[in-house]
Amino acid sequence: MLGASNEPSRIGGRPIRYLKEGGFPGPIWPINVKGGTIQGLPAFKSVDELPEAAECLIVAVPAAAVCDAVENAARRGTKAAVIFSAGFAEADEQGRKWQERLVRIAAETGCRVVGPNCLGLFNARHGYAPTFTASLDHGHPKPGGVGMVSQSGAYGSHLFVLTRDRNIGMSCWLTTGNECDVDVSDAVAYFAADPDTKVIAAYVEGIKDRDRFLGALENARRAKKPVVMMKVGRSAVGAAAAASHTASLAGSDVIYDAALKQLGVHRAETTEEMLDAVYAATRGIFPETDRLGIVTISGGAGVLMADAAERHGVDVAPMPEAAQVRLKSILPFAAVRNPVDTTAQFFNDMSLVTEFTRTILAEGGYGAIAAFVTAIPRNRETGGRLKEALTKATAEYRDRLLILCMLASPEMTKEYEAAGYLCFEDPSRAVAAFAALSRFGRSFAKGAGSPPPALPSSAKPVPAGASLGEAEAKVLLASAGVPVAQEKLAKTAEEAVAAATSLGYPVVLKIASADILHKTEIGGVKLNLADADAVRAAFTQIMERAKKEKPSARIDGCLVAPMIKGGLETILGVIDDASFGPVVMFGLGGIFAEVLKDVTFRVAPFGLDEARAMIREVKGFPLLDGARGRPKLDQEALAKALSALSVYAAANAATLRSIDVNPFIVLEKGALAVDGLIETK
Amino acid sequence: MLGASNEPSRIGGRPIRYLKEGGFPGPIWPINVKGGTIQGLPAFKSVDELPEAAECLIVAVPAAAVCDAVENAARRGTKAAVIFSAGFAEADEQGRKWQERLVRIAAETGCRVVGPNCLGLFNARHGYAPTFTASLDHGHPKPGGVGMVSQSGAYGSHLFVLTRDRNIGMSCWLTTGNECDVDVSDAVAYFAADPDTKVIAAYVEGIKDRDRFLGALENARRAKKPVVMMKVGRSAVGAAAAASHTASLAGSDVIYDAALKQLGVHRAETTEEMLDAVYAATRGIFPETDRLGIVTISGGAGVLMADAAERHGVDVAPMPEAAQVRLKSILPFAAVRNPVDTTAQFFNDMSLVTEFTRTILAEGGYGAIAAFVTAIPRNRETGGRLKEALTKATAEYRDRLLILCMLASPEMTKEYEAAGYLCFEDPSRAVAAFAALSRFGRSFAKGAGSPPPALPSSAKPVPAGASLGEAEAKVLLASAGVPVAQEKLAKTAEEAVAAATSLGYPVVLKIASADILHKTEIGGVKLNLADADAVRAAFTQIMERAKKEKPSARIDGCLVAPMIKGGLETILGVIDDASFGPVVMFGLGGIFAEVLKDVTFRVAPFGLDEARAMIREVKGFPLLDGARGRPKLDQEALAKALSALSVYAAANAATLRSIDVNPFIVLEKGALAVDGLIETK
Repeated sequence: MLGASNEPSRIGGRPIRYLKEGGFPGPIWPINVKGGTIQGLPAFKSVDELPEAAECLIVAVPAAAVCDAVENAARRGTKAAVIFSAGFAEADEQGRKWQERLVRIAAETGCRVVGPNCLGLFNARHGYAPTFTASLDHGHPKPGGVGMVSQSGAYGSHLFVLTRDRNIGMSCWLTTGNECDVDVSDAVAYFAADPDTKVIAAYVEGIKDRDRFLGALENARRAKKPVVMMKVGRSAVGAAAAASHTASLAGSDVIYDAALKQLGVHRAETTEEMLDAVYAATRGIFPETDRLGIVTISGGAGVLMADAAERHGVDVAPMPEAAQVRLKSILPFAAVRNPVDTTAQFFNDMSLVTEFTRTILAEGGYGAIAAFVTAIPRNRETGGRLKEALTKATAEYRDRLLILCMLASPEMTKEYEAAGYLCFEDPSRAVAAFAALSRFGRSFAKGAGSPPPALPSSAKPVPAGASLGEAEAKVLLASAGVPVAQEKLAKTAEEAVAAATSLGYPVVLKIASADILHKTEIGGVKLNLADADAVRAAFTQIMERAKKEKPSARIDGCLVAPMIKGGLETILGVIDDASFGPVVMFGLGGIFAEVLKDVTFRVAPFGLDEARAMIREVKGFPLLDGARGRPKLDQEALAKALSALSVYAAANAATLRSIDVNPFIVLEKGALAVDGLIETK
Repeated sequence: MLGASNEPSRIGGRPIRYLKEGGFPGPIWPINVKGGTIQGLPAFKSVDELPEAAECLIVAVPAAAVCDAVENAARRGTKAAVIFSAGFAEADEQGRKWQERLVRIAAETGCRVVGPNCLGLFNARHGYAPTFTASLDHGHPKPGGVGMVSQSGAYGSHLFVLTRDRNIGMSCWLTTGNECDVDVSDAVAYFAADPDTKVIAAYVEGIKDRDRFLGALENARRAKKPVVMMKVGRSAVGAAAAASHTASLAGSDVIYDAALKQLGVHRAETTEEMLDAVYAATRGIFPETDRLGIVTISGGAGVLMADAAERHGVDVAPMPEAAQVRLKSILPFAAVRNPVDTTAQFFNDMSLVTEFTRTILAEGGYGAIAAFVTAIPRNRETGGRLKEALTKATAEYRDRLLILCMLASPEMTKEYEAAGYLCFEDPSRAVAAFAALSRFGRSFAKGAGSPPPALPSSAKPVPAGASLGEAEAKVLLASAGVPVAQEKLAKTAEEAVAAATSLGYPVVLKIASADILHKTEIGGVKLNLADADAVRAAFTQIMERAKKEKPSARIDGCLVAPMIKGGLETILGVIDDASFGPVVMFGLGGIFAEVLKDVTFRVAPFGLDEARAMIREVKGFPLLDGARGRPKLDQEALAKALSALSVYAAANAATLRSIDVNPFIVLEKGALAVDGLIETK
């Protein structure tokens, strides 16, 4: 403990006190220039005076003294440093330089550095607590399965206090501060591999290395460890929006949303929602079905919970007919479909609880049962009888999620929890927590999913330098496996007529120039040309307008393409997100994308499963799926194009700034890009 | 107490025990056929044996014996009855008859009847507790300002327990059961007038009398008493959807949503949200601004709260420049814009809290200040110092809402609450509660609002009987003040040509027949006819098709109308809702209404203010407001049409089933109905 203090409430004093309180079994070496005795332990005057290299150096000295001390210790063999000191990159230029030196020390010596400007960490099982958070003043953590990492020290402490208040056990807790070395991705990856950790909670403000972040989350998913994440900054949307149309729809928070969904992470909007999901996940049961059985003693509560279920995408599927008939024969006034309402009658006869609960568990095929029992467990006598009645029903179903909505004393709640029940006061929160668990279940069941397809051997690389207009862009897209409209370049009016004749009328003429990216704006597009005369006239007009509007543009001629009829206009896009690199966008054309922002994103690359999920996610999906007498369109061709585009984008991340495929027309059979634009870095 | 029991945990025993425990000052007369002494009180053998008419008869005898007893008491002069007994309309045919008799008794004698099949009520100030809810077992209510009514006994009890657990005082609590007489509207109206009640909480499953319900809520709004309502059944959407297009978009829950919003009611989705809003409202401060000042000791918490603010429509407006400069000079590392972050520095110097908080209150112009102080008040010493520092800052601003986000013991929380602070553990919930309070503030400030316009004297009534096709419907709409496209009826092709010539080309021809309501489907519409030949040909074609497709239809000829160019297609509609009667719908045309269900509703009639609010509510609103280079359209003409339609619908509620005005085209100047359909009862 460098900068050790004899005062147990000072920054340099707290870690020593906490290590002693927590029963940390290893030696604790206070270091203070004054030497002497600190909190009953002999102190050393410098790192060099230590009898041997410390395993970990805890640092609470002014920023100016940090680097030398860490370097000395690291060179001597210290494997880790936890730096509380502020005054680094968050402060000023000098601090930024010191932080850069810390990065170098870590890289050169292999000493892992946590911080600087962090609140430290603890490992609950070992009583290891190199932290100065004041939150340990009112109680040390209970060892258990939750690993927690936070980029904010103060909010990380807040989360820890809430976790402890809810009697949830923890493995490790870590605040990462300025993240000069150890970052949130390291923590998630560690938790994914740590046998003591079963549930991962993370508070994140931003990430720097997408691959390590996504990799860590994927490790967790493969290990079937749920990740509950609070990613703040949702309202600070894309201030420096990029120039391209697609980019202006993005805003990086939307991309975080997409990436986290892709990885099966539960993104919590509120602290309470985060704790609820973490608490529920500690039960270790992740149903693959979203079917929820509800049993209540109040019809009103049942309706309320059914409402909550719809809001959270939970299926309140009815009980099988036979089971309904049997329950009805036991209690004629009961509602037996789902929600099942035993009415207040069970007060008189607790065996009803046993019978009803057992039937729902045995025959309902639900991922969980949620029982609304209000304040019954508040009374020790009825509470005890209810627990007994429930235990009889659930004895054979210990692998099932059993959720109680109840108002009881903390002691009684602990008793129910010890018996394996998840307990919530608010029935809507209980339903929300089940929704989170079943999403985890489905994400875990997905396994590897459908992998991204291979990049076609024909794929031409995106060149660095100037952006690519329609003709060139479409050549690249076609090479990448994205179907494009058949078209021919015509340098003269007569070439255009010949092309139209071979393609078949009616046709479309479009200006072909790498210098004219927005063709319609200069009158460079003519639709629905029915014969040779019309093509000739259109060619002349387009050329004249182009020369007038953009005298400096190099013009290659006109593209001639068949006029496509029917189908639905969609937009496929790629943007280069600051956090996640190439990200693929999908939306329907026109007002859907522009006005309604009805678009969806995925981090590239991805396979057909994700592409299919994207398509179903947009609100306008019914238009692709035969809504209101429309034909059902070729969603599979669309999905293939999306995943091909994602693979191409990922392979060209170094040079690609954006791709706009607008419109990409989906037909009853097939789909094809009618226009395209590729911007490069 | 009819059906009195000596056993204080029986239904007939609890009210006597509760009245005694609560110190009810009036006489308590147990009635039981056996007579004797009950819970220490002399018992009577029947209602007739009572020394005089009881003020209130509490009834806990079997259903078969209820009516006679209530009638006897009422005839003798008893003014109220609270009936616990079940076995009435909720049970079977016999029970329904008994309940009808109770309705008659109430109407004939003026005795007000609560229930049957209810859990009773209490008045906390008088210790008056004619109820058998078991929730009083663990504590009587604290007298205070919250009036609560619930249609569900069990859920009402659940809500009471939560209210008591949160130390919120109550005036009255009432469960209405089968509502044979006293219903939820009576309760709201009572609370609106009751000087002891400051905040109204209601749990509602359904209502029968729209006028009394809306009237009671409007009384509450005018009395500036916030109503927090949980209306369940959101997921049980319009199962028996009506035939008309508009009706299929409705679903009565959407109408509840609209009506409650119109009346300024806070509709809570969850129990917790309900209690949070009620708790916050007890402070009695309802800011008219939605600007929130946020001060934190953690940058992360600030971002989190700003995110929550955006989600709840709360404005985190920046501090004035001068104030920012001054705060920055006090603490250079602080964030001073809003959220204001004092950093952990204030731990060392609590005067910073005073200075920062006072500055935000004095200069920010915020409706409230929300301070995130995490677990600081958990420690008695720092908690006390923090309270002192805050009190110094807020002493001159006791009329402001001061919200703290903190983790403290219940005792310390009570101390802060006693000092006038609203305390929340979860910062997002604190922001949500502020949002509710400021919505109340704006609703209260609205006063009477802009009243519905008068029905034009020219308005023709909607006739009973057959539905009305386009021509007739448009005559009625025009008479009601809804602008309609100019058009002429032509019986022959030559009449059509003459009409077209006088209206000006191009024109539209549409079949005119009350028997053909869906004209396009039979080829009965021809657009964009440019000259006399085209009009002639179209007339002949339409007539031939109509005769072929609908041989039995009476055909009046064709309507000739000018072809309208530009503008935006919208839909105005009226449906006759089962709960609320005539309700006006507004949405944009095409996929907006059909696929996206992007429509909004208001209970008729309403004035221009509500109409303007409707228009701004739909997601497609930017298309009316000049999005992406489009012209800005005449929203005021649209608003006038909506309120005129609402007035007309309300005036014709007796005969009107539905109105579809589709499309109603909004132009840059003016707006007009191009087609219309009125269905009658």
